[in-house]
Amino acid sequence: MKAAVVHDKKAPLVIEELDVRPVQAHEVRVRIAACGVCHSDLSVLNEYFACPTPVVLGHEAAGIVEEVGPQVDAIKPGDHVVASWSPACGICRYCRAGKRHLCRLCDDPTSASAGRLSLAGQPVAQFLGVGGFAEQAILSDNAVVKIDPEMPLDKACLLGCAVLTGYGAVKKAARVAPGDEVAVFGCGGVGLTVVRTAAEAGARLLVAVDLDDGKLELATRFGATHTFRGDDPELAKKIRALTDERQGVDHAFEVVGNPDLARVCFQSICKGGEVILVGIPRATDKLSLTQIVAVNQEKTVRGSQGGSVDAWVVVPELVSRYLAGVLRVDELVTRTYALDEVNEAFADMRSARNARGVVRIG
Amino acid sequence: MKAAVVHDKKAPLVIEELDVRPVQAHEVRVRIAACGVCHSDLSVLNEYFACPTPVVLGHEAAGIVEEVGPQVDAIKPGDHVVASWSPACGICRYCRAGKRHLCRLCDDPTSASAGRLSLAGQPVAQFLGVGGFAEQAILSDNAVVKIDPEMPLDKACLLGCAVLTGYGAVKKAARVAPGDEVAVFGCGGVGLTVVRTAAEAGARLLVAVDLDDGKLELATRFGATHTFRGDDPELAKKIRALTDERQGVDHAFEVVGNPDLARVCFQSICKGGEVILVGIPRATDKLSLTQIVAVNQEKTVRGSQGGSVDAWVVVPELVSRYLAGVLRVDELVTRTYALDEVNEAFADMRSARNARGVVRIG
Repeated sequence: MKAAVVHDKKAPLVIEELDVRPVQAHEVRVRIAACGVCHSDLSVLNEYFACPTPVVLGHEAAGIVEEVGPQVDAIKPGDHVVASWSPACGICRYCRAGKRHLCRLCDDPTSASAGRLSLAGQPVAQFLGVGGFAEQAILSDNAVVKIDPEMPLDKACLLGCAVLTGYGAVKKAARVAPGDEVAVFGCGGVGLTVVRTAAEAGARLLVAVDLDDGKLELATRFGATHTFRGDDPELAKKIRALTDERQGVDHAFEVVGNPDLARVCFQSICKGGEVILVGIPRATDKLSLTQIVAVNQEKTVRGSQGGSVDAWVVVPELVSRYLAGVLRVDELVTRTYALDEVNEAFADMRSARNARGVVRIG
Repeated sequence: MKAAVVHDKKAPLVIEELDVRPVQAHEVRVRIAACGVCHSDLSVLNEYFACPTPVVLGHEAAGIVEEVGPQVDAIKPGDHVVASWSPACGICRYCRAGKRHLCRLCDDPTSASAGRLSLAGQPVAQFLGVGGFAEQAILSDNAVVKIDPEMPLDKACLLGCAVLTGYGAVKKAARVAPGDEVAVFGCGGVGLTVVRTAAEAGARLLVAVDLDDGKLELATRFGATHTFRGDDPELAKKIRALTDERQGVDHAFEVVGNPDLARVCFQSICKGGEVILVGIPRATDKLSLTQIVAVNQEKTVRGSQGGSVDAWVVVPELVSRYLAGVLRVDELVTRTYALDEVNEAFADMRSARNARGVVRIG
């Protein structure tokens, strides 16, 4: 089968013919229909995110199950599924505590899935256990979420990462309530979903921040009440000036992965307010905060991994909301690409041109 | 009336005869029975905590109301009260949101209470609106909590700061649940109350950290299951080794105000765990965290101001618990002092000798 393979992180991806080994127990083989291009894929190429090569990138995929291995109970051929880069074993202390998104299996899904693909006998890894820029993927049965087949697969793929993360960050991590004041830093696929979900949750002030005017325009269409450019040197001050007597927003979402921006978030929240860290920074990036402000002003900095939600509960919920016309996904897709245009998709991501790019396969 | 006055932060406190002006509307005059010595008082002398001079320190006081001004409805002469350094107006956006401990009036209670005391015509401030190292204090009626007169006043004073903060940090800020794993860094009056409250809340692992062996011994009596010295270079690693498969505690309480220790807390918590910042650091202290760890391991750093609780709800609850024999306060008081021994009380705090010292007045 065809797949886009990273041999050298500094060179373009190469479309190769890979061998797919037969499915084993607790595995399913999925024909990939579409896979979103996420900043975490680019982070592998930028060496921000450690990952062995050769590897098939892509972790935001949807497709149709073609074959299931032994001991697969809940999934059958023909099922439409969204891949999860966050497998859940169901029995570890995290899963038992209702934090399946922190399952011990998430610690290294790339290596855990080793041996499924090969190129002329040499193993090729699936990034985050998915490897979605390919015609097929072998996935663990605890890494696929079955969805309503009414859902278009080229939109469903985004539910596995960008939309899940943005939606969960608002609903589960921050629990935005009616009347809350919110700022969102970064308006790509995740940030725009944060904007939309916060608007639906009843945020009375909803500030969107980005460097791209087109994304800010989209943020306004999604419900932002005010927009600012992210390089404005007085950003925190201007945001505070928009808020009520408390002089700061309740929730500031950092969806870029930049410690300087995280500090602006910290300065933009009110006493008792919360910064939600969603974006993935470089491994060496340090966030520096004035500790006494955290205590005396009771500020919280909360990391949120993938929206802090159980994908098996929330992805089907997102599908229902999409089919009911409530959840907006179509507008997130700035452009679609064929598999052999995958390098163009990465170039467009580097230039921050897209809210989200989607690679359509087969 | 007699009071311990700071004229020069580098010099000893001086016992002076101060004039107390008549009570005005919404004020009460309290005869102070006892006042605890808190690290925040010492922080004024160390210039860590900005405060004008001359000033009467002490903000952890209890006494008996002698006189009330006009428009004071809920308090009458003879009432036993605990002072609150966290006045609550009842109508600001914080008070209305159930966050009375963040009331706009808390932003500068020292200046807000200016003009009540004087020395030969020169104004003398009451630290945090209290000024408890004195025979009397004029307090705003929204800064006193009425308590059951059965409660001994020389213990009640600690309920206004140390015990309120430690209790609230566990019950309200962290919401420690049965089976949780907990570490407490710093075992003075606040930290020991954190230990005791976490033990009562059902923590299954309860690690206490301090530099003083006597305090660690007391922590064990209060319910700590393990103790470590705070200068152990492998502290985080040793704590993680005690925990379950998640390799980290659920809650780490920083009760010292030290960014290096806060970083050890961050390293000691599990995925999804939380650092509760309780101790007051220097104004310039920066807390530096690896941002990607916060996101990928979903770690939270939460500042908690005074236990994040409504003193008017919780202080009476603490009194009931004390009178029922459940809440342990007596053991927190290492030593008591007369008002003219107040400099000795500060010297003992500097040498970290006391869990808590209490100045008994009159």
